[in-house]
Amino acid sequence: MSESRALARFAVRSRWEELPEPVRHEATRALVNWIGLPIWGTRDVAVERTLAAVDPFSGPREAALLGRSRRLDPLKAALVNGVAGSICDYDDTHLETVIHPTGPAVCALLALVERQRIGGADFLHALALGIETQCRVAKALAAPPARISGAWYLTGVTGGIGAAIAAGRVLGLDEDRMLWAIGIAAARAAGARETHGSMAKSLVSAFAGEEGLEAALLAQQGMEGPEAPIEGRRGLAALVAEGADCSAIAAGLGQSFEMLRNTYKPFPCGIVIHAALTGALELAREHRPDPAAIERVRLAVHPLCLEMCGRRAPRSALEGTFSVYHWVAVAITARAIGIRHYSDAVVNDPAIVALRDRVEARADPGLRRDEATVEIVLRDGTTLARHIAHALGSIERPPSDAELTAKLADLAAGTLTPERIEALTRACWSLGSAPDARLIATLSCVE
Amino acid sequence: MSESRALARFAVRSRWEELPEPVRHEATRALVNWIGLPIWGTRDVAVERTLAAVDPFSGPREAALLGRSRRLDPLKAALVNGVAGSICDYDDTHLETVIHPTGPAVCALLALVERQRIGGADFLHALALGIETQCRVAKALAAPPARISGAWYLTGVTGGIGAAIAAGRVLGLDEDRMLWAIGIAAARAAGARETHGSMAKSLVSAFAGEEGLEAALLAQQGMEGPEAPIEGRRGLAALVAEGADCSAIAAGLGQSFEMLRNTYKPFPCGIVIHAALTGALELAREHRPDPAAIERVRLAVHPLCLEMCGRRAPRSALEGTFSVYHWVAVAITARAIGIRHYSDAVVNDPAIVALRDRVEARADPGLRRDEATVEIVLRDGTTLARHIAHALGSIERPPSDAELTAKLADLAAGTLTPERIEALTRACWSLGSAPDARLIATLSCVE
Repeated sequence: MSESRALARFAVRSRWEELPEPVRHEATRALVNWIGLPIWGTRDVAVERTLAAVDPFSGPREAALLGRSRRLDPLKAALVNGVAGSICDYDDTHLETVIHPTGPAVCALLALVERQRIGGADFLHALALGIETQCRVAKALAAPPARISGAWYLTGVTGGIGAAIAAGRVLGLDEDRMLWAIGIAAARAAGARETHGSMAKSLVSAFAGEEGLEAALLAQQGMEGPEAPIEGRRGLAALVAEGADCSAIAAGLGQSFEMLRNTYKPFPCGIVIHAALTGALELAREHRPDPAAIERVRLAVHPLCLEMCGRRAPRSALEGTFSVYHWVAVAITARAIGIRHYSDAVVNDPAIVALRDRVEARADPGLRRDEATVEIVLRDGTTLARHIAHALGSIERPPSDAELTAKLADLAAGTLTPERIEALTRACWSLGSAPDARLIATLSCVE
Repeated sequence: MSESRALARFAVRSRWEELPEPVRHEATRALVNWIGLPIWGTRDVAVERTLAAVDPFSGPREAALLGRSRRLDPLKAALVNGVAGSICDYDDTHLETVIHPTGPAVCALLALVERQRIGGADFLHALALGIETQCRVAKALAAPPARISGAWYLTGVTGGIGAAIAAGRVLGLDEDRMLWAIGIAAARAAGARETHGSMAKSLVSAFAGEEGLEAALLAQQGMEGPEAPIEGRRGLAALVAEGADCSAIAAGLGQSFEMLRNTYKPFPCGIVIHAALTGALELAREHRPDPAAIERVRLAVHPLCLEMCGRRAPRSALEGTFSVYHWVAVAITARAIGIRHYSDAVVNDPAIVALRDRVEARADPGLRRDEATVEIVLRDGTTLARHIAHALGSIERPPSDAELTAKLADLAAGTLTPERIEALTRACWSLGSAPDARLIATLSCVE
């Protein structure tokens, strides 16, 4: 049996009640972590422009746009919600592969909740299957023995497959159709890191969600795909990662859960920045150094941090997402980080720019990805130093449920009323026992 | 200036009157060669299934489905026409890269002809730019010094970019927006050969057409992409082809035309089969051997023929497309090849199967792709042998305009009336001087 078929079989046969409680809870946490993002992000100009492009072509307006009152057909809603959810790079991250798996899967699901009744547990179950699938496929493509180019944006590559699994589950696909859905999504798997820093970045994971939903809809109607779309000789793995061990995709399905190694960002920037940012924040809070008194800041970080987030002079919030220099300067100056710091104004604040220019970073291959050292050298000769063994938002220091609730409230504050935020928060945490997941979409909208 | 920007600039500034006459004529030939394909292909079950999946989500039904009377919104029409056009693998082929560039570009354009007035010459011009772009990008990715995996289905990889250029041209994008359209399409560039032999194969180039159109629409509204989406350090070329020389994309734009090396298939099967098929056909016509009297057939072919079309025992017309054994058996038995031979019934005809099982093929790296030798060994000891230096449908032996007209008539015969086929044929050949390209869509539909 091909690994893809094993994946399809598991997705079809899995039962919510048989998933371990931590897995079920993690699906809920993934939802709470994500749902505020599009509510905040929908105000961004990139969402306006996407909407302007696709709205004239919308079919029946059956699906909600989170943070708005306007509606679109389910496929286009998946796209627009996906863009809105990706604006500030504040989502979940499967650290080993640096994918952000919740967005594509949850966008595909939310697009369907008003088209058919989906029970709360069924929604979370499908979401869990979608996230688990993406993490497993990404791991096969990105972990040794696979050799993969750093140019791949794996969220785009794996997102459609996860979204297809999630949508396929609630559409009730049988095993063959689920396999075809995987195959149709895999045939579209794409994404280059060259998009990072431009609006096209947010489109990549958004396309994945829409395409996964469309793959499930096509498979439902009988569009057939190949037997081994990922692991076949000319399949996705052969394109993306030489030497990939695809057996990892299916090994221990239902027993071990890669989604338990998915984490949630406490800061709205690239995950590889988080270790240095944690250190800077801790030093700033404890010692409250005056930015003007700082001669320089020295960072030692994992090489991937500079590879992915080494922009020296970002010009926008979008580019700032990929600048460790910028966020360390923000942390030292502001001594607390929230979504309010994700803005063009902060990136171009002369005080931030001045401090950013005094931040130096060195790649140290001996460090883990969630590890860093930060030294703040003051003009008076004092050095404040901190070694961060594990960043906030790492597997070892995950946000608590209460912190995820606070993140949702922070993100939704400018858009939804406090009452609605509270109702949405309650609906998310209790979704597992709710009769209809539609409530999540309804409460996420502006009345 | 990045190669992608050079491409965008050329697409924006190019003038139809300044293109050499052979290039302009080739755009028309590409259209005539392609337009019959969806008219024939739309009767296939894969089109029915695609339509069943996307029809419920259609927006304003502004765009024609060729060979039908039903209509869909432009994006979905591009998808469905793309699937219909890809069913029988009978389209054009840029031999050096084995891409089929007309489909994605023409589907994006036909989706727009009823939404805005597009002059006939403007339509052909945009089509030429789309085809030229795909051929150039594919060549950079596939020709030495690039090292590319044979798993890539380059039609999918390059199709969206060509469709974006074509649609972007008739949408009147400026240089920046054209560059963004390229970038958004490149971020979605995808396609694995593992899909070949399943219905998902037809989806790959169809998705490319729809995605290219959507990329142009998104860019038109201001969705920004990166400056160097193809050639950037983490761009498309880095994903697909190690060592690719992207300067080839822009070199000699407007002076040399890669689309003049695009050819049109005389047979509805993989282009790499055509040399052996030409030889078998010539021998069968000249010597009329009784299939029952044939002991075996020996082929020597370019290695790519067996790599891509080496299926020993196809079970369907779809799988037959990728079987040199099958088509050589058909050629010897039928002594003429038309679209009527693309059918499940022919693939499963016991007489064809019996002869197919006696066909042997050997890969000879010393042969060109369009070269083959065919030996028919009769039970009486006679050997009929033929060396084909250049296959029918190769650059050296292209179909004449009259043969393209006959191909269109053959494909449209079961769907359109003879009068309509004649009107459509005339409309295509005279499109360059027509005030409105809409006529092509109108005449391709069933009333």
